[in-house]
Amino acid sequence: MTRIAGIAEKVEKRTRIRTTEKDIENIISCLLKGREGSHFWEVVYLAQKPFNMVAETVGVLKEEGLVENSEDGMIRFTSAGQEFVKNEKIYPKRHYACPHCERRGLDLREFDDLIKRFENETEDRPKAILDYDQGYVTSRTVFGRIALMAERGDLEGKRLLVLGDDDLVSLAAGMSGLPEEVVVLEIDDRLVNYINKKAKELNLPVKAFKYDFRESLPEEFVGAFDTFTTDPPETIEALELVMKRGLASLKGEGCAGYFGLTKAESSMKKWNEFQRMLLNKFEVAITDIIEDFNHYVNWDYLLESIRDDYSFVQVEPRLNWYRSSMYRIETVSGFAGVDNKPQDCELYVDNEALIYKPVSLTK
Amino acid sequence: MTRIAGIAEKVEKRTRIRTTEKDIENIISCLLKGREGSHFWEVVYLAQKPFNMVAETVGVLKEEGLVENSEDGMIRFTSAGQEFVKNEKIYPKRHYACPHCERRGLDLREFDDLIKRFENETEDRPKAILDYDQGYVTSRTVFGRIALMAERGDLEGKRLLVLGDDDLVSLAAGMSGLPEEVVVLEIDDRLVNYINKKAKELNLPVKAFKYDFRESLPEEFVGAFDTFTTDPPETIEALELVMKRGLASLKGEGCAGYFGLTKAESSMKKWNEFQRMLLNKFEVAITDIIEDFNHYVNWDYLLESIRDDYSFVQVEPRLNWYRSSMYRIETVSGFAGVDNKPQDCELYVDNEALIYKPVSLTK
Repeated sequence: MTRIAGIAEKVEKRTRIRTTEKDIENIISCLLKGREGSHFWEVVYLAQKPFNMVAETVGVLKEEGLVENSEDGMIRFTSAGQEFVKNEKIYPKRHYACPHCERRGLDLREFDDLIKRFENETEDRPKAILDYDQGYVTSRTVFGRIALMAERGDLEGKRLLVLGDDDLVSLAAGMSGLPEEVVVLEIDDRLVNYINKKAKELNLPVKAFKYDFRESLPEEFVGAFDTFTTDPPETIEALELVMKRGLASLKGEGCAGYFGLTKAESSMKKWNEFQRMLLNKFEVAITDIIEDFNHYVNWDYLLESIRDDYSFVQVEPRLNWYRSSMYRIETVSGFAGVDNKPQDCELYVDNEALIYKPVSLTK
Repeated sequence: MTRIAGIAEKVEKRTRIRTTEKDIENIISCLLKGREGSHFWEVVYLAQKPFNMVAETVGVLKEEGLVENSEDGMIRFTSAGQEFVKNEKIYPKRHYACPHCERRGLDLREFDDLIKRFENETEDRPKAILDYDQGYVTSRTVFGRIALMAERGDLEGKRLLVLGDDDLVSLAAGMSGLPEEVVVLEIDDRLVNYINKKAKELNLPVKAFKYDFRESLPEEFVGAFDTFTTDPPETIEALELVMKRGLASLKGEGCAGYFGLTKAESSMKKWNEFQRMLLNKFEVAITDIIEDFNHYVNWDYLLESIRDDYSFVQVEPRLNWYRSSMYRIETVSGFAGVDNKPQDCELYVDNEALIYKPVSLTK
């Protein structure tokens, strides 16, 4: 067995996440990118691999004397490590994100003034809290979503359902003047009240209601929307349930759903499992998967909610490291709604989740 | 039935492509975008709907007196048509493509000199011909693919298989200095010879061989590559066969495949069918679907190869209208090669294809 295969095996054993030699190579290549060393969160961002896989890989590399880290959290290769990556022919990660559109492919200049207004109006927004696994996206992300939906004909003159809205997409959509109506279903009272208050103040066609997606979708919202958007928790069970609720809300064929899915909390195996579920259980096509579309503003509770056994992990991020790919799905012929029963499910924790629970407790 | 539903029904009957009211709305919204009227090819590009669906929609709108077209191919709404779209609340198509990256999300400045060199070196490239459904992409598209593969760790120091290469991705990859080795399998002798000649002249690690993908993949290429890239014909049978050959060439888990899929020749229903096939037959995840990534240079044989029953179709395109979405797939755990038998299949023609055959003959 090669040394890299050995590292992959150790990481897989500790994380219970399938880990290939290519995964290890990729993480090492991200560690090599910073000339003066790398910050853990930058590596997670660049690697687009599960958080725990990256943490354990750095952990194993450290145990094997290939990297070391200083107090400020910088991770550097030791001379043995430098020798190793040279022999293994691993190259520094390349990175070509478009500076104009932040890799979304969308020109947001038309929205510049609106983005400022949105930021001013929502300065007093509720803080992200751990109870509901919150963490909201940047304003440019919010308007990236608005632009994408508008461009695809899913917003202007349409009815939009927002399932969970700590991102305040509903208010942004309302402020754009494009949708006919926006409905928010949200579990957090603070957000329900905030969105309704703002919508009233600004005279927007936006209404928020308290809702836990483990309940059935209220009858009046079944088959009532052109478009849904959501940012689901990433256990397979939660993903399936959120898709069900979103799809149940759509009018029929040719409607669209938008949602984010990360690589930091979902392995390729989970992506595969999710996609298979999505296509086999529902009559939809995936029309877009745009990596790095959703940029999350760092949230206050990060370090207290995650593992504290590695010092290089317990450092404040220097960038908005948490990203997700934007999915768009479209209902195709044969689509005729989905079952709308109440259903319990594990929402937030599996062995790929960021929130720390010992692996043995997750199943 | 609404008038739009009636139009959808007529279009579906003529094209045998499932057509929804939303499809018709979308095509009308694209027709509305040009202030001075619209060119057919611009509408196909903007609508991202099957070519034949767009043609028949315009045809029906014309028969119903809602649009008319002048000799130069410009399609305009009649006053009855203007009234109609106003009543139906259909808005002009919005379009926010990033001007810096042409919607690929990638900053190609690092490749600017190389793109010029590539264009100079390949000025004498073989012309696209109808026999193999050819049509090559712009140089910026070629280097978009190089950048994407490089960024994802699928190119540098790796072995790349190019299945069909009228785009000359192999030469571009070789000129970038990144891959260890590039192999091209190509049916067109002109391209095999051209690529081998150029590779020798420029001293690139690129080799081309004649190959028809209906044959088994040659033994020495089975399980031999990190990455494959291809631009498949778009019948479901051809898509499946090309995926098989590409995947058979990969070393194992964590390897990647890249390919384009259009909306101009593939309906959402076909996308759905293709994705289901891909995920159910092979152990892969779809990691990216980037719309509008691949821009094709207009090819000489277009107008002679397509339907000639509509005058608004038989006009020279004013832009590179033919685009495709870039897919990236990654092999996941459990991937252990695929069957490699010879297999015949219909390559180019179904009722969504651009190349014209009467619908009754296609099945």
